[in-house]
Amino acid sequence: MLLVNGERRKTLPVSDRGLQYGDGLFETIEIENSRPVFFDLHLRRLEAGCLRLGLPFPSPGLLAEEARTLCRESPAQAVLKIIVTAGSGGRGYRRPETIETTRILSLHPYPEYPAAFGTEGIRARLCATRLGINPALAGLKHLNRLEQVLARAEWSDSAIQEGLMLDSGGHLIEGTMTNLFYARNGALYTASLERCGVAGIIRELIMRLAARHRLAVIELSYTPERLASADEAFVCNSIIGIWPVRQFEQIALRPGPITRNMQQWLADYKQETLRSEP
Amino acid sequence: MLLVNGERRKTLPVSDRGLQYGDGLFETIEIENSRPVFFDLHLRRLEAGCLRLGLPFPSPGLLAEEARTLCRESPAQAVLKIIVTAGSGGRGYRRPETIETTRILSLHPYPEYPAAFGTEGIRARLCATRLGINPALAGLKHLNRLEQVLARAEWSDSAIQEGLMLDSGGHLIEGTMTNLFYARNGALYTASLERCGVAGIIRELIMRLAARHRLAVIELSYTPERLASADEAFVCNSIIGIWPVRQFEQIALRPGPITRNMQQWLADYKQETLRSEP
Repeated sequence: MLLVNGERRKTLPVSDRGLQYGDGLFETIEIENSRPVFFDLHLRRLEAGCLRLGLPFPSPGLLAEEARTLCRESPAQAVLKIIVTAGSGGRGYRRPETIETTRILSLHPYPEYPAAFGTEGIRARLCATRLGINPALAGLKHLNRLEQVLARAEWSDSAIQEGLMLDSGGHLIEGTMTNLFYARNGALYTASLERCGVAGIIRELIMRLAARHRLAVIELSYTPERLASADEAFVCNSIIGIWPVRQFEQIALRPGPITRNMQQWLADYKQETLRSEP
Repeated sequence: MLLVNGERRKTLPVSDRGLQYGDGLFETIEIENSRPVFFDLHLRRLEAGCLRLGLPFPSPGLLAEEARTLCRESPAQAVLKIIVTAGSGGRGYRRPETIETTRILSLHPYPEYPAAFGTEGIRARLCATRLGINPALAGLKHLNRLEQVLARAEWSDSAIQEGLMLDSGGHLIEGTMTNLFYARNGALYTASLERCGVAGIIRELIMRLAARHRLAVIELSYTPERLASADEAFVCNSIIGIWPVRQFEQIALRPGPITRNMQQWLADYKQETLRSEP
């Protein structure tokens, strides 16, 4: 199920700058009970991303209406992807004077993950492919995702659920599709995303929920060895929520109280927002 | 004029990984006398790029045939763009087990540049947007081109023809759409592309032609101040050929004998290959 600029189409002009240059952004949104979860946060991130890339932000009312249209046809649980591109036009890298964005909304099946990933945790590996350092793009969920594609292509062992990525300076940043946190001595730590990485919605919520519960969260630069002295570690994104990491290369970890609490706080907050939204 | 997987279509499935993730490569090829220039070199680069990205290389015979089909309908001078993507399929960043690439060939008008750009030279500026350092992607003409798009969006002054870009470490690498050389004391210098940048076909030819004419070419890391002590500088790509740089920010330069010779050697070599190819 697809809507391209509000029309039921499955195709896009080849000239679209999203294809030609990856000139655009996307959001991956959980659908629960046929409703988009944390939709306002996704729209706000998309708006902030458009601002940074110099793209006009499509009307949020229009995006919400189109999302509702798809949700009416959606299974109770699904994934909604929204792509906004710079549209067609412009010769070469130069954008046209007036940008008419393309917006693409698509519904996808909710991936079937074993419940144990959330309770017992997952195995993660260290990827050889690194994240380039570029403050101009850092934090954005843009369409230039070859680094993640190459990192994900490094392994096919289905016993490994995620690959963690370093930046080109050797600092541990995030997973191919997740943000990463670790806990130590009662505080949470996560990579600073000033120079690369994707600023995930769940990452943002975790920081807010931690503040609400007086749990310190420190953003920092760190190398992967740091996980050896962590008490807990977990990865997160909008579709999986929070998965504890029980193994990262040679480092064994176990889900602990901070991860459990955060999972509970996030689940409660999700229900809270779903109840409060019209 | 467009061929998508050999068919006359103007559209592409939204699910194509070229759009979703920029998972693909492209070539921009000059058409002269209705024939693609340096076509073998472009195909070889495309093949090398596919190998590095883990994509199957489409049959070169097929690509050549499709290029010929478009060239028959082309004005004498034009631009041929070939895009190869990882095709549709795969959930998230993970590619499908079997990749069926998408190939897109499109014809574009040859841009109208004043002849003076080639004789008297162009003005270039320094872009604020930098190139992220990533050896896994360095040299490739891949579809993740947001850095170039953002750099090109920095200026609209039509008196400035190109913007030069630093890497995140402050080294001068290339233009938004060109490679950059400078000459000093009778030798040519250009940025090493081990960590970022696009390894252009004309850049490669310049290095070959320099060797043939016993002109030293040194690949190095350097900062933009270096251009202040250069005797000459020029930018190059497959469409413009070689343009001298006559002004870069506060640095004034003038086209000199090395640039003139290289322009002549390249023009001769082009005619030579066009005559020798069937």
